[in-house]
This record gives sequence, C-alpha cells and structure tokens, in this order.
Amino acid sequence: MSLRINADRLLSDLTHLSQIGAGQDGALWRIAGTKADRAGRDWLDKTMRVEGLHTYYDETGNVFSRRRNTTGPWLLIGSHADTVPAGGHLDGAYGVIAAMEVLRTLHEEGHPLADHVESVAWFDEEGVRPESAGGLVGSTALAGSAHAADLVGYLEIHIEQGRRMEKAGLNLAPVTGIVGVRRYQVSVSGQENHAGTTMWVDRQDAGRVAARIVAELKSIILAVDPKGIGNAGVISFGPGAANVVPGTASAELEIRASSDRALDGIEADLDATLSRIAAEENCAAELVRISAKPAAHFDQRVLSAVHEACLEKGRTDQLLSYAGHDASVISTRLPTAMMFVPSTGGFSHSNKEHTPDEQLVLGAQALLDAVLKVAPMLLEQEVGSPVALAA
Amino acid sequence: MSLRINADRLLSDLTHLSQIGAGQDGALWRIAGTKADRAGRDWLDKTMRVEGLHTYYDETGNVFSRRRNTTGPWLLIGSHADTVPAGGHLDGAYGVIAAMEVLRTLHEEGHPLADHVESVAWFDEEGVRPESAGGLVGSTALAGSAHAADLVGYLEIHIEQGRRMEKAGLNLAPVTGIVGVRRYQVSVSGQENHAGTTMWVDRQDAGRVAARIVAELKSIILAVDPKGIGNAGVISFGPGAANVVPGTASAELEIRASSDRALDGIEADLDATLSRIAAEENCAAELVRISAKPAAHFDQRVLSAVHEACLEKGRTDQLLSYAGHDASVISTRLPTAMMFVPSTGGFSHSNKEHTPDEQLVLGAQALLDAVLKVAPMLLEQEVGSPVALAA
Repeated sequence: MSLRINADRLLSDLTHLSQIGAGQDGALWRIAGTKADRAGRDWLDKTMRVEGLHTYYDETGNVFSRRRNTTGPWLLIGSHADTVPAGGHLDGAYGVIAAMEVLRTLHEEGHPLADHVESVAWFDEEGVRPESAGGLVGSTALAGSAHAADLVGYLEIHIEQGRRMEKAGLNLAPVTGIVGVRRYQVSVSGQENHAGTTMWVDRQDAGRVAARIVAELKSIILAVDPKGIGNAGVISFGPGAANVVPGTASAELEIRASSDRALDGIEADLDATLSRIAAEENCAAELVRISAKPAAHFDQRVLSAVHEACLEKGRTDQLLSYAGHDASVISTRLPTAMMFVPSTGGFSHSNKEHTPDEQLVLGAQALLDAVLKVAPMLLEQEVGSPVALAA
Repeated sequence: MSLRINADRLLSDLTHLSQIGAGQDGALWRIAGTKADRAGRDWLDKTMRVEGLHTYYDETGNVFSRRRNTTGPWLLIGSHADTVPAGGHLDGAYGVIAAMEVLRTLHEEGHPLADHVESVAWFDEEGVRPESAGGLVGSTALAGSAHAADLVGYLEIHIEQGRRMEKAGLNLAPVTGIVGVRRYQVSVSGQENHAGTTMWVDRQDAGRVAARIVAELKSIILAVDPKGIGNAGVISFGPGAANVVPGTASAELEIRASSDRALDGIEADLDATLSRIAAEENCAAELVRISAKPAAHFDQRVLSAVHEACLEKGRTDQLLSYAGHDASVISTRLPTAMMFVPSTGGFSHSNKEHTPDEQLVLGAQALLDAVLKVAPMLLEQEVGSPVALAA
C-alpha cells in the first residue's frame, strides 16, 4: 500500500483547467451551461480517455471515468467542474483533478481496486443559472438515477473556503457533515408618514423593525447553536426617502446550523423575536421560509476511515462544512464523507483562491489513502468477499 | 375689536383652490413651477384684485396683495401656494387663504390697520424641483430682498401635520419655533465574503454596522433631547445577495431637534456610536452631514401676542414645529411667529389631509385677532406713534 499519486501531473492538470474560462485577472467564468464550462468538461473527458480509461457523459452532463470493461460496483470520487462568475481555480476543480489523479494512479499501478473506482465531474453545483437556483444539479440527478445502485459510496475532497484550518495549522481535515441552510424573507408593514411631524409614539416604522431583526440575528443564532452562522445580505425600506418614515421594509435572512433541530430552534426564536419587535414598533411582520437545505451528517464508518487517512499525514481535526457540496445530496443515497485542504486567507469564489502546492499534493495523496481504506470496507459489504479485492 | 372674518368666503375659497391641480382622488399636484401651480397663484392674484386690492408678483414668483396707494410699513401674513406631489388641500393653502381673508376683512371694515397688512402666497416652499431641493425658495428670496425693509414682522397659520393637538384636544396652538434638521449619509466599508464559510470572528460585515446604527438612532436622539425626532428612511447593503456577507452598506439618517446645540450633541453621539459599532464589526464607517437647516426660535413678544389670541378661543399650549415652514427663514430677518390648527389623524402630504371647518374658521379668526395685537405693537416700534393706528 505504498501507492503514490503523481504530484506533477496533479498540479499541471490543475493549471491547465484553470486556463479554461479564465478572464484577464485569472478569475474563472466556467458558469454551468456556458461554452467555457463545456470546454472544461470536454477537456476532463479527453484527458482521461487518452489514458485509456472509459469516459462518458450522463444525460445531465456529469462526466464520469472508470476502467474499461469493468462491471462495478464502484466507489465514486469527485467534485464539480463549474464555477461561480469570477470564481477561483480550486473550488470544485481541485476535487475533480484529485479524484482523476487517484483513479489514474490505481489504473497505472494495476491495483485491483482500480476496477472499483469511478471519478466524476459534477455538472452545475453552483446554481448560477436562474433555472438551477440552489445548484447541486448533477449530483441531485445522480442520487435519483439508476446508476446510483451501482455505487457503494462517495468521497469528495474540497478546499475549506474558510480560515479555520489555516488558523489552526491543519493540512487536512475530515468533514463530519454539512450545515443545513434556510433562507427567509422578512416583510414588514407599517405606516408611511412625515418624518418630522410624526412623534415616536405615533409611528409604525417598518424600517426600525427590519434593522432591529438584522441587528439581533447573530445573538439569536448563537443562543441556539454556538456553531451556527447566519447572514442578512439584502435589506430595503419603502418608499425610501430621508424624510419619510418607512411604511414598508424587507430583508433576506440566511441561517446555517449543524442540525435540522438547531435550524428549527433558530427559526422559532427568529419568528418570536420578529413578532415582539414588530409589536413594539406597532407594525405587522412576517417571516417566510423561501428555501431549506437539510443538514447532512456523513457516514460514521466512512468518516472514521477518512479521519485515519488524514491522521497518517499529521495533526488533524474534524470540521463541519458551512458551504454546500455535492456530497450533501449524495449522502442521502450513499455512504459518504469529505475532506478539506486549507484555503489561504479563507478566500473563495474569487481569483484570490489559493492553497499551497504541498497541501494540494498531500490532499490528493490522502484521498488515495482514504479510497484504499474505504473501498474495501464498502465493497466487502456489497459483494460479501474481501479476497477478490486484495492487492 | 369685534371684527369677524367671513367664514363662508374662507371655506369657499379653500374649496376653489383645492380644485386647481387636483387628481381624480382629490390629491393635489400644484408642484412649484408647473402649470397647475401657476394657475393657483393666478387665481389667488385675481381673487384679491377683484376685491379692489393691489396685487403683484415679485421676481421670484411670490404673490402679494395689499391696499392700493399705501406706503407701509406692513405686517406680512401668509403661507405657501405649492404642494408636494399628491399633496393635501390644506398644507400651505389654508394659511394663504386665511391671510387673504384677514386682509379682506380689515379692508372691507375700513380698519386703519388695513393699510399696514400685506398678504403673501410664497413660491416653492416644498422644494420638489431638483433645482430647489430644500425648498423655502420664495421666503428665502424675500428675506434677502429690499422689500423686507418695508415689513415689520410676519405671521403664519398652518395645519399641524401631526397628532399632538388632536390628542390633547386643542383647537389652536402658538408655535414657539421650528426644529433644526440635519441629514447624514452613513457609509460603511467592510469585506464582502462567503456567508457560510466566513466565521463570525473573521467577518467585516458592513450590513451589521448600518442596521445597528439605524436601530440605535432613536435612543441616541432621546438621550440628548427628549423632544428630538429622527428617521432612517434609506438603507442598502452591497453587493446585495442572501449568501454574501455585505462588504458595503449605506443609510441616510435625519435628525430634528429644538436647538442647534441639541443637534450638535446628537451629531457627536451619533458619530461616536457609529465609530464604536464599526470597530466592533471590524469595519470602517463615515458619517457625512449632507444638509443642515438651523433651528428657528420665534420672537418672544410676537409669540406672546399670538398666544393671547389663541387663549381667547379656549385652552391652548405652545408647540414646537417639527416640519419646516417659510416662517423659519423669515424669522432670521423679521419678528415672526406662527400658529397651528389640528390635523385630523395627523395626515399630511396626502389626500387624507383634513381639519374640521369650525377649526379652520376659528384659526382664521385667531389670525385676525393676532394681527390686531401684533401689528400695532410692531408698527409703534417702527413709526413711533400709536395714535395713527387706533381703530
């Protein structure tokens, strides 16, 4: 089990992919469905084909590769090939190239597990197109497809997109699950009025209600879940004049927490606080949930194996993912886990995305080592015989 | 001194003026400089001319009337003839018609003071046109004109545009002065970031700064001036997406207080609080004053006489005006005071503006009675002889 990935090939492939759809400043525009996105997937497909692997697009646009003439079952590994507008060169792309590198290493070395690993580049994770708001398009299609029955599990490596690992000095981290995300529309209705002649006591200031709930969002979340996160990214007052007391106001709130139960608790407190503030300001207010992604909890056995693979490379610590990933959807159908490499400065969704080469190489190697642990375990469960898979 | 105004003429003239520039719903569109505004002023001019009075437009567009062949000095009485878009039929118009009614009564009765009273319909008080933002155009021009030297003082009656009188059961109220008004632009600069992967401690959330200062505006004002008022009518977060931590935010704040000293105190506290909040949120913030109207304090002797005239009609109480009026500008040049009649429901700048007829009549009578007290006092001071003015 001293298989080594090819570090030069990994880095050179990443560089190549980072030139497809790049703007002048290096930011990437491989938005799902665009020509650049298609060119990227075509290049991934071709790259695996020239290595003698079998490649194919499914009807959604996901790109798969595996050894020719194998019958499965397979452990699926991969990530997504699309980017946000002006995105970075590692978000998604790193996990795709790392998975391809793992499969190629197994294939070249003639490792018996090579017949039981499939790599994937997911279509449209980011959900930038209006018709795919929410994203996770390719993985959602796979989770509901017949092909899922041929798979025994899923592993994904991704950049952290935050600063926790960098601050803690970690090179690798197993990921325990993915936060649930809920979005709400706050709509407040008061009474538009003269901002000079309307005394405080006579006001129905919808703007104050919106500002106060935005200001309290953080403490509401932390009181329920110390690991919870949230955001108020959108706000507006109507009619929007300096000398008119706002008669209407709206805001968009987002909450993220480690369990659906925590999300329920935050939602209830948010609703109660909004009602209290609205009553204090003589307004009517409504909290409407406009989207909800459930929290994902990864498979304990797969997670333990991934943790072991990370530990072999040094100090590590299990992390919760605050961003959504294809692994979240796939985990509803297959035993799944993820691992992170650090993001320098925490930058993501920008041309400032960066992870040092050594960490990128270490991550791909850890993914290979995790595959070597996880695949036998899941395949044994599936086919009932460990012998056929021994090296 | 038992002169009575003509209640029927007062109400019928008000009705007539309320039809010039009216929309289907009765809301008025006599925005300064429009055809409807000009038609309104032309009708006021004609109405006084047919009564045998001398009328004239000054170069700004203010419409004056007084007795023919008089040489002054005059006590000026009046209000403005223009409206906001979809405004009400009493804001300005009532004070104009009431002043005309007072002058006509004195004129018809052959009262010696009739030679020393001039009525005015001010041009463009509201400041709706972009080129006259801030308004008070006609009165500002008059205050700086040669004609001001021919005037001994100024009285104005206006609807309250708030609910204080209605709630206190007052029919008439002398006005002690007009709040000073300052407007500020709050600009906050933070760091736009991923709303999931950026932990609270790593955020520079410009939106939280803007929301928190808006939420604290009321308590900051009240701590300095219990009579202070304020408003946050405009707010926005950039880039404005539910899943992006706002990197920029802006808001417009307005404060109103009874003295410039109070405004200074509120401004200092606002600035200090904004700095503290910005520091807590790791952001930079700026409070920029974009406009300032000083507080007006009316002439004590004129105010006392007006108070007496109000008291003769029943219970009364001195009020501070929270809305701007032409009297504010004129008070910097001439001894000035105002009086209010109630606004039913506090509505103004809308077609819901209403004051019961009896109160409109009572107000115009009180204005006449105030003129009979104020004019001799100010004229005696000016011409040095009370005899010529006796009835």
